[in-house]
Amino acid sequence: MRYHADEPELDAYYGDIGQAHLQPLWEMSGLLTPTPVVKAVPYRWGAGELQKFAARAGELVPIDRGGDRRVLAMSNPGLNGAPFISGTLWAAVQFLQAGEVAPAHRHTPGALRFVLEGGGAYTLLDGDPVVMGRGDLVLTPSWVYHEHHNPSSEPMMWLDVLDLPMVAALDAVFFEEGPSEEADESVADRSASELRYGQGSGLVPTGVSASAHQRPHSPLMVYRWAETDAALRALLELGDGREAEVRYRDPSRDRDVTPTLRCEMRRIVAGHTTIADQQTGTRVCAVLNGAGTARLAGQEFALSPGDVFVVPSWCHHQIEAESTLDIFTTSDAPVLDALGLFRRALIS
Amino acid sequence: MRYHADEPELDAYYGDIGQAHLQPLWEMSGLLTPTPVVKAVPYRWGAGELQKFAARAGELVPIDRGGDRRVLAMSNPGLNGAPFISGTLWAAVQFLQAGEVAPAHRHTPGALRFVLEGGGAYTLLDGDPVVMGRGDLVLTPSWVYHEHHNPSSEPMMWLDVLDLPMVAALDAVFFEEGPSEEADESVADRSASELRYGQGSGLVPTGVSASAHQRPHSPLMVYRWAETDAALRALLELGDGREAEVRYRDPSRDRDVTPTLRCEMRRIVAGHTTIADQQTGTRVCAVLNGAGTARLAGQEFALSPGDVFVVPSWCHHQIEAESTLDIFTTSDAPVLDALGLFRRALIS
Amino acid sequence: MRYHADEPELDAYYGDIGQAHLQPLWEMSGLLTPTPVVKAVPYRWGAGELQKFAARAGELVPIDRGGDRRVLAMSNPGLNGAPFISGTLWAAVQFLQAGEVAPAHRHTPGALRFVLEGGGAYTLLDGDPVVMGRGDLVLTPSWVYHEHHNPSSEPMMWLDVLDLPMVAALDAVFFEEGPSEEADESVADRSASELRYGQGSGLVPTGVSASAHQRPHSPLMVYRWAETDAALRALLELGDGREAEVRYRDPSRDRDVTPTLRCEMRRIVAGHTTIADQQTGTRVCAVLNGAGTARLAGQEFALSPGDVFVVPSWCHHQIEAESTLDIFTTSDAPVLDALGLFRRALIS
Amino acid sequence: MRYHADEPELDAYYGDIGQAHLQPLWEMSGLLTPTPVVKAVPYRWGAGELQKFAARAGELVPIDRGGDRRVLAMSNPGLNGAPFISGTLWAAVQFLQAGEVAPAHRHTPGALRFVLEGGGAYTLLDGDPVVMGRGDLVLTPSWVYHEHHNPSSEPMMWLDVLDLPMVAALDAVFFEEGPSEEADESVADRSASELRYGQGSGLVPTGVSASAHQRPHSPLMVYRWAETDAALRALLELGDGREAEVRYRDPSRDRDVTPTLRCEMRRIVAGHTTIADQQTGTRVCAVLNGAGTARLAGQEFALSPGDVFVVPSWCHHQIEAESTLDIFTTSDAPVLDALGLFRRALIS
Repeated sequence: MRYHADEPELDAYYGDIGQAHLQPLWEMSGLLTPTPVVKAVPYRWGAGELQKFAARAGELVPIDRGGDRRVLAMSNPGLNGAPFISGTLWAAVQFLQAGEVAPAHRHTPGALRFVLEGGGAYTLLDGDPVVMGRGDLVLTPSWVYHEHHNPSSEPMMWLDVLDLPMVAALDAVFFEEGPSEEADESVADRSASELRYGQGSGLVPTGVSASAHQRPHSPLMVYRWAETDAALRALLELGDGREAEVRYRDPSRDRDVTPTLRCEMRRIVAGHTTIADQQTGTRVCAVLNGAGTARLAGQEFALSPGDVFVVPSWCHHQIEAESTLDIFTTSDAPVLDALGLFRRALIS
Repeated sequence: MRYHADEPELDAYYGDIGQAHLQPLWEMSGLLTPTPVVKAVPYRWGAGELQKFAARAGELVPIDRGGDRRVLAMSNPGLNGAPFISGTLWAAVQFLQAGEVAPAHRHTPGALRFVLEGGGAYTLLDGDPVVMGRGDLVLTPSWVYHEHHNPSSEPMMWLDVLDLPMVAALDAVFFEEGPSEEADESVADRSASELRYGQGSGLVPTGVSASAHQRPHSPLMVYRWAETDAALRALLELGDGREAEVRYRDPSRDRDVTPTLRCEMRRIVAGHTTIADQQTGTRVCAVLNGAGTARLAGQEFALSPGDVFVVPSWCHHQIEAESTLDIFTTSDAPVLDALGLFRRALIS
Repeated sequence: MRYHADEPELDAYYGDIGQAHLQPLWEMSGLLTPTPVVKAVPYRWGAGELQKFAARAGELVPIDRGGDRRVLAMSNPGLNGAPFISGTLWAAVQFLQAGEVAPAHRHTPGALRFVLEGGGAYTLLDGDPVVMGRGDLVLTPSWVYHEHHNPSSEPMMWLDVLDLPMVAALDAVFFEEGPSEEADESVADRSASELRYGQGSGLVPTGVSASAHQRPHSPLMVYRWAETDAALRALLELGDGREAEVRYRDPSRDRDVTPTLRCEMRRIVAGHTTIADQQTGTRVCAVLNGAGTARLAGQEFALSPGDVFVVPSWCHHQIEAESTLDIFTTSDAPVLDALGLFRRALIS
Repeated sequence: MRYHADEPELDAYYGDIGQAHLQPLWEMSGLLTPTPVVKAVPYRWGAGELQKFAARAGELVPIDRGGDRRVLAMSNPGLNGAPFISGTLWAAVQFLQAGEVAPAHRHTPGALRFVLEGGGAYTLLDGDPVVMGRGDLVLTPSWVYHEHHNPSSEPMMWLDVLDLPMVAALDAVFFEEGPSEEADESVADRSASELRYGQGSGLVPTGVSASAHQRPHSPLMVYRWAETDAALRALLELGDGREAEVRYRDPSRDRDVTPTLRCEMRRIVAGHTTIADQQTGTRVCAVLNGAGTARLAGQEFALSPGDVFVVPSWCHHQIEAESTLDIFTTSDAPVLDALGLFRRALIS
């Protein structure tokens, strides 16, 4: 970046200070804007394309070709080809052929998996096998070893969301290969994490080690669809019956599932249109069930099961349900909250 | 209290300062003891007597005779006839005939109900009806209106525990009669409290009012036995299979169910004897299932379903299970924790 | 306690349940009252009597006669001779002759010292010597070793406040004699505690050990009058100039100085009368400077420097300043706060 | 970004998925690295150049030319001309001529000012005038209106640090012009903020409005050098006398001065060399007093008063003091802490 004022004295000055690695604020623009100027744009990736291209990758690319993961990253059209769904989040589909294993590693960027279709695979989290079923949310928080196994006879695909761009922007990416253990393919229906922490609202084992509690993320690593669905049905029973939403939280204390990712599931009943809103931070949304329309900053996107869409920061956002929609949302809201930067406005 | 030193000058002085409402520390003893000197003694109330005397009260005493509750308080033999199970806690059995109603009131002392036998009654908590079944824990926290209804054709009895002696010692007892509403006898299986907060570990409604969250107690008012039992079975699966314990907690944040009462359920498998311990504060224990022996400060108490026993502060405590025991415990541990006074020691 | 109903069947029943250590709620009264029924009464101990009787104890009683402290406890006239200023707090004057030492011990009841007159003594707190001057607040929190030395040539007296009745009611009193070290009589003006934590608002050493931070009380053990006075003057400058109050707090985190005692200093300018209030919990107040009147539950008490008065729970309380008053107050408010039992009402 | 595999089928596939805004993870590299790969490099800006170029800007550029601030941003040589000192922080010198005013505005990026030389100006913070002296730290947290006045007869310069790149990366920049009030040039020595919260360790006004406490930043807006210096001297007295460090904190609760910026002052005594360390996140350091050498990732930078240097994330960092150094450091550590990403290693 070089500054030119068309005034010789000033230009000389700009040259001098440039040598000294200084830049004049008064020649810059766009640093402080009335509202966020966001490069990422609203966009929807259709289930059909995601599935087709993931399956095709399964044919063309071995799992160990690079990065040990067969992953297609959603690249926001506003980000000039960066492989990120927004400036702060990474979203992708991951595809595992029958019998394949994606080996263990861990990294400081935190991740979650949400299963939009199928089942049969499991994830090993610091040695605890977690079976992945449709509608399940599986956490792979920062610095937890994880590997993925598909012992079934069908390929499987799921949605990955990571805080990678944010952790990279903070210059805090660390990575380690995992231990290469012999995989024990006999996997229980319920992980140790669920046996300990998933047994009901407010029930926590008393004998738990203090260290488990001191990790910055939820000790419950998977939230099953059956429970989420039941919770939504219960809330609809209580309210006006038009929409309901649950937040997935750390059952052992008062916080989101991880320090960087907030997760929610929203049910919008057929025929209902939500109040429009806008909020700071990125929302990555995935349609589990139902059909309808997302109105994002004036654009309309048709929604079907398996679609993924992104709502950039401060973007107008409204959903209309044609048939009853179940939309999973993950966002960087815990970060904005912690930094005093979370804002939300309803638009009437 | 008058002090005598058998020294004339000193006795005259003691007379003078007594007039001035002053007392000499050097003539006192027992104020600061190496370990707690506890008046309350370990004791067990047998299920048979509790049931027999409660049923007899049902015959002899109308519900509205005094206090609007038909309650038998357990009076610790060490407390000189005070109607308290220890210096800090009140424990009692409450008996409701078929068709009876104990009308609404609220008070600053916090209470809980634990159902040792039977079912069919419900409690109305700030208007939310909570059906009470065997093994269920029902909270009636400080300043929440509560009334009890038994619309069934059988009498019902349960255990009450309150922090009444503690709140009285703090000179902080307030009480109000409740609104006299027409009772609607059609009661749902699940309370609104459960529909909102009892739908699974870590799932919390996002649309909840901030005020609900600002109350000092759990928004979940009932913990069902089926879930507690499942949690204990899951923990036994994970551990050495000899004992397991869950703590009941506020599912919306990191704390006990109320600011004064900690609740836990412990399963001790047949044949196992626990490690002996002692801890500050009172533990009130109720046997839900199984048989065995409690060893408390050297005494042995046989345990059967429906028995209630008290473990006073710093009392040696050890349990031997003949058949698999389920023991519900409530204690004032949150108070001792908050005040920096909680101590626990294992005795090998 | 025995119950008599003048109905033979019922009386027989009461006999039977009495044998079983059960008592009928419906025969009790006074358990749940609309507002607190408080035994402690408002009372004031005059400076003259406190000083006279303390000095006389200095002549009559050696320091090691009993309890190793020469202390006169204020006995609330409403408490039937119990040596407590209220149901929850102990207040006393402690007197140390020139050259005397009150040896080290520690106990779970937490204490504080407030110096109403004089100086020259120091307290050793876990080995850290804290010089005590007029208007200084010195903490001796739960389980901290403390010993008192008076190396000066004048006797010294101060106010002690402890949470002893409360800790005793919780059956949580522990006590230990301290190590008998040779006292080093060369004591610095500023304790290590002040050098570390008393250097200015918001300045905390970064190299501090985590363990120091994990204690349940403030790491700053003394609050000097010069700073308190300056703070009050600054606040009067900002407000309407009629009254100001500071709360003493843990400078390292968001809490009171100890888990059981709240400390405040209030300045009421000559001619001003405060708004009347009532609050749950006991307030122990000491007049450092000025003169006026305390109106407590309809009674009037003249106030002079060195006077100590008690405001029992929920007692109407109003102060009128004839000359500008500085009143130090300590209360059990942190306990009531933690238990959800703190209430305060302004009375217009 | 386009991917080429030199395999026709794969290249066709890459073309297809590119159309669908998808990218293949297995063709990417550098996303997950063993340790942070940091673009920002260690660098030092000399006091002489900062002062010379700032003064020259004072001659060449009117205050209202652009952005209403006469500011020279330090541009990290590793960031390809971006006007940021690292990927997360902005650092700059700001220059105000005698008599000038930089008008009011507010923005979500949070700022602080540290005065390396001179005095005489003041900052108006939500209407509260704060005089700025040498060694003072002045906060201008997120969304607080601020304007700068130099009523003196000398120009003044100070260091600005903002979290601007981080807030921009989070797409959360908001900005508003402030009210244009008539400036009242009679400014008190102590701001209202200091009168309320700066009166001594642990002393907080009891009458403070809850809203003041609910802001996400310290209510104390300025930390005076005299207190910081006294705190460092006290800590040196306690320790081995070789180095001491204080952290500036919110005096009303347990947290850093703002949610994004940690501030510390470190004194390293002449002749002492610190233990080398590395930590995640950016440190911006300014030399207030003394001379010595900074060793950053193997490079040596001579240090003199007024110099500013940057220690990028995970960069080796060691300081050698020739004469006693006082180094002010601000960092984004609160963000890394909140997100579970803070790591620090000592290098022996």
